[in-house]
Amino acid sequence: MTMKEYEHIIQGGTYITMDPQYRTLEDHFMLIDAGRIVDILPMTELQDFKAKAYTDAADCLITPGFINAHSHLPMSYFRGWADDLPLHIWLKDQIWPLEAKMLAGDFVFDASLHGAAEMIRHGITLTNDMYFYVDRIADACSIAGLRVIVGEGIIEPEYLGDLSVFKRRVQALKDRYQDNPLVDCCIAPHAIYTCSKEVLKACTTAAAENNWMIHTHLSENQSEVEDCLKHHGERPVDYLAGLGFLEAHCVFAHGVWLDSEEIKTLAQAKAAVALCTDSNLKLSNGFVPVKEMLEQNLNLAMGTDGVASNNNLDILEELSTTAKLHKALNHDPVLLPAREAFALLTIEGARALNRAHDLGSLEAGKWADLCLIDTNNLQSQPLYNPYSHLVYSMGSEQIRDVMIAGDWVMKNKKLQHLNEADLIEKAKQYKNTIISKMES
Amino acid sequence: MTMKEYEHIIQGGTYITMDPQYRTLEDHFMLIDAGRIVDILPMTELQDFKAKAYTDAADCLITPGFINAHSHLPMSYFRGWADDLPLHIWLKDQIWPLEAKMLAGDFVFDASLHGAAEMIRHGITLTNDMYFYVDRIADACSIAGLRVIVGEGIIEPEYLGDLSVFKRRVQALKDRYQDNPLVDCCIAPHAIYTCSKEVLKACTTAAAENNWMIHTHLSENQSEVEDCLKHHGERPVDYLAGLGFLEAHCVFAHGVWLDSEEIKTLAQAKAAVALCTDSNLKLSNGFVPVKEMLEQNLNLAMGTDGVASNNNLDILEELSTTAKLHKALNHDPVLLPAREAFALLTIEGARALNRAHDLGSLEAGKWADLCLIDTNNLQSQPLYNPYSHLVYSMGSEQIRDVMIAGDWVMKNKKLQHLNEADLIEKAKQYKNTIISKMES
Repeated sequence: MTMKEYEHIIQGGTYITMDPQYRTLEDHFMLIDAGRIVDILPMTELQDFKAKAYTDAADCLITPGFINAHSHLPMSYFRGWADDLPLHIWLKDQIWPLEAKMLAGDFVFDASLHGAAEMIRHGITLTNDMYFYVDRIADACSIAGLRVIVGEGIIEPEYLGDLSVFKRRVQALKDRYQDNPLVDCCIAPHAIYTCSKEVLKACTTAAAENNWMIHTHLSENQSEVEDCLKHHGERPVDYLAGLGFLEAHCVFAHGVWLDSEEIKTLAQAKAAVALCTDSNLKLSNGFVPVKEMLEQNLNLAMGTDGVASNNNLDILEELSTTAKLHKALNHDPVLLPAREAFALLTIEGARALNRAHDLGSLEAGKWADLCLIDTNNLQSQPLYNPYSHLVYSMGSEQIRDVMIAGDWVMKNKKLQHLNEADLIEKAKQYKNTIISKMES
Repeated sequence: MTMKEYEHIIQGGTYITMDPQYRTLEDHFMLIDAGRIVDILPMTELQDFKAKAYTDAADCLITPGFINAHSHLPMSYFRGWADDLPLHIWLKDQIWPLEAKMLAGDFVFDASLHGAAEMIRHGITLTNDMYFYVDRIADACSIAGLRVIVGEGIIEPEYLGDLSVFKRRVQALKDRYQDNPLVDCCIAPHAIYTCSKEVLKACTTAAAENNWMIHTHLSENQSEVEDCLKHHGERPVDYLAGLGFLEAHCVFAHGVWLDSEEIKTLAQAKAAVALCTDSNLKLSNGFVPVKEMLEQNLNLAMGTDGVASNNNLDILEELSTTAKLHKALNHDPVLLPAREAFALLTIEGARALNRAHDLGSLEAGKWADLCLIDTNNLQSQPLYNPYSHLVYSMGSEQIRDVMIAGDWVMKNKKLQHLNEADLIEKAKQYKNTIISKMES
């Protein structure tokens, strides 16, 4: 009888499984086939298995791939275009005119390819992206090998009074990606202040019909809450609940200004909040009530937001800042300890995107989405506690290999499906285009 | 007549001078000789000069080396030993017992070598270090090629009643390093709560006699201020001023709990505060009143603190967090804009350590302490504004070359005076020693 040949074996290293027991395994190997984790077994059993490819993970931490619960990939070329401005000036005088002049399918594709490449370098294996021309975002991610959930940012007045356009687009998205295991779709109304009640209701219907989750911005700044109270007589979460939002699986970006009652409502509805700490700090939108959210068992995840307000896609740095910031805000050095923090980037991120059944931890049957993190460097030594290391010590540059659905998208720090020099060259060309268009 | 041969020419790139006009120069080259910057001249004049060595800085930002105004190099091996604990438990049950069991000259030397190497990787060219066995810290830095100011951490009861020991040590330090251009000394009483009035007074005398600056911890946490009020009837700055501290050049680490009057007093005395943002957040000691300090023109600099509370020496990440955090705390996205933030790491850092005359900017006559930062990578593109890039976008891994006093201490990301593999191996050995000693 011949021995079954599996696709991959990863051997050695320390497996940070993020499974329900938070097991960390040494002297183990991981068996991967058909894009999924078959098992993680003791090295003593290695001789019983055979694989087409072997990867040595000695001195590495093997972690679940990082999950980015809120992004705008096509904003890559707006990185650092305008900083240090009040939010309304930043948006009105800089970002919106920039978008008005630049947005087109090819631009979105090119910028998304750049962003997808940068995300992979930072260990991100799934991103939940909201923007326009989302078919081009999905195409770019598929080429990069990055898993993505795309949601077309729905903003009035485009859809006002003509919901058939909206329905056609949802159907087109569905048709286009139904056979692509890397791409999923969701419904992504931009925000309560950019969509009418009618459109928001149509979103809940579409979500129900397609069994898709809803992704939207929520309570990013204080005026948004005040406006909602003024125009609708209730706070944002009550307003959305009244429109049927919470019957779908919802992931809300930001959630800075949620109050206790809203947190409770969201937790009961099993909705999730994507923390975009760097963006909130840089635009000075405020501090998310993370402590209360944790106490109420609200599902929290990490999001990078777009690079225009971040200004990079280093989600590990973002997690580190988040873990430390909320300690200080709450005068509590014990809050959000390292392991709990790392869960936000992995299993809690998967839960937030309704994918905990097949992503977010290293467990048999789940997709083989993972990072190999090299610890043989100065910044990683000595290493007493892998969770502390992941959250407080390491930098993204220590991510050596990234696998998504059993496919090495980065190997020895080299992207496998993209030519980095070409991406850099293209970004430089777009810079010149953007400058000349904005000057004209 | 033969053409003078200079030591180095760096050509191409963008020079972020941080000079009084904040000039950024393109199409220039830098002439370096005897460890110092001779001039930065237009490329059109290149043919008039000759050098022993040429470095191509195309696609690089050339910046002043980063200045770390508060560190504890020998704590390198304590990285991640204990996290997520209340300050008093962290110190009393973990850090102090660890120090009691481990501290010795060789340990300090080895850990400092590790820390110095990590600092260079993060672009740090001068660090202001306080610890014990400081001669071994200085030796380690000299080998690494890192510029250092060492101050022996003065703590009771060692010096109690026998100030002659203290004076002998100061003299020994002075003798040992007087001919070493990389090493300077200062007086470093640990804190007001660990030194008697008598010892603190002796410190001011020693500072005056040697024309040295004073480096101490100040108002890191609230109880320190309360204790000072209780025991001395005045706030820490008034207490120190009464002991003659402010007649010396002083750099104070932390300064979290300084009030308006204290800030004014320090600004008038031209003292400086080293911001240790990550450490303050992680130990939840509070938020420094940075806005008021800036308004009062108090000299601010960045410090990493020790890796036990940080947990790395990535001072650029620390700066990025600092710039964003204080925007959010003050509801002001315009506060501490990128250029002003980058000054904290360079020219303001030099001012803080009383070295603005020969460090902190790229100007003729100053020491050639600088970083070459590669922008040919995904995270750096597109690049519209170099200050925004330095503070908000880039990661330390983009630092390609580091020069200190005209000496390349890192070239193409390779340390020039240290064997990194040996340092990593040694750190792993110490980890085992530390674990077995702490278990016994």
